[in-house]
Amino acid sequence: MKATVHVTLKPGVLDPQGQAIGHALSGLGFSGVTSVRMGKFLELDLAETDRAKAEAAVRAMCEKLLANTVIEAYRVEIGG
Amino acid sequence: MKATVHVTLKPGVLDPQGQAIGHALSGLGFSGVTSVRMGKFLELDLAETDRAKAEAAVRAMCEKLLANTVIEAYRVEIGG
Repeated sequence: MKATVHVTLKPGVLDPQGQAIGHALSGLGFSGVTSVRMGKFLELDLAETDRAKAEAAVRAMCEKLLANTVIEAYRVEIGG
Repeated sequence: MKATVHVTLKPGVLDPQGQAIGHALSGLGFSGVTSVRMGKFLELDLAETDRAKAEAAVRAMCEKLLANTVIEAYRVEIGG
């Protein structure tokens, strides 16, 4: 079973990497980009075949390792 | 107008970061994770209000800066 995880900075948390990308884009002539926020995207293949169990396992992985829940939010999608 | 971009390694390209995460997960007791692929996720706010123009601009940004198209694929979604 496949799972995807989006890890994003919580609103209000400063994103220097996103800001740097925004500056680089305007330096390349792309005007009109008012904000860039950078996050992580993970694709996991799981041996688990039960959808609910898979989601619970991936959520536990996020809490323990994949996301820093003080400053980051995560979104789990289970599919396939 | 908001745009989201997923940048992922192309199939077959080695992903040492994903492998490291997979090893760390199994070290934490999460068995049954057969593969982890790590990618990037960007959220952009654009001043552009035309959907087609916004998508074309973001695709150009991906080609020029956001993705290394030799090894990475990207997916653009325009919304809101």
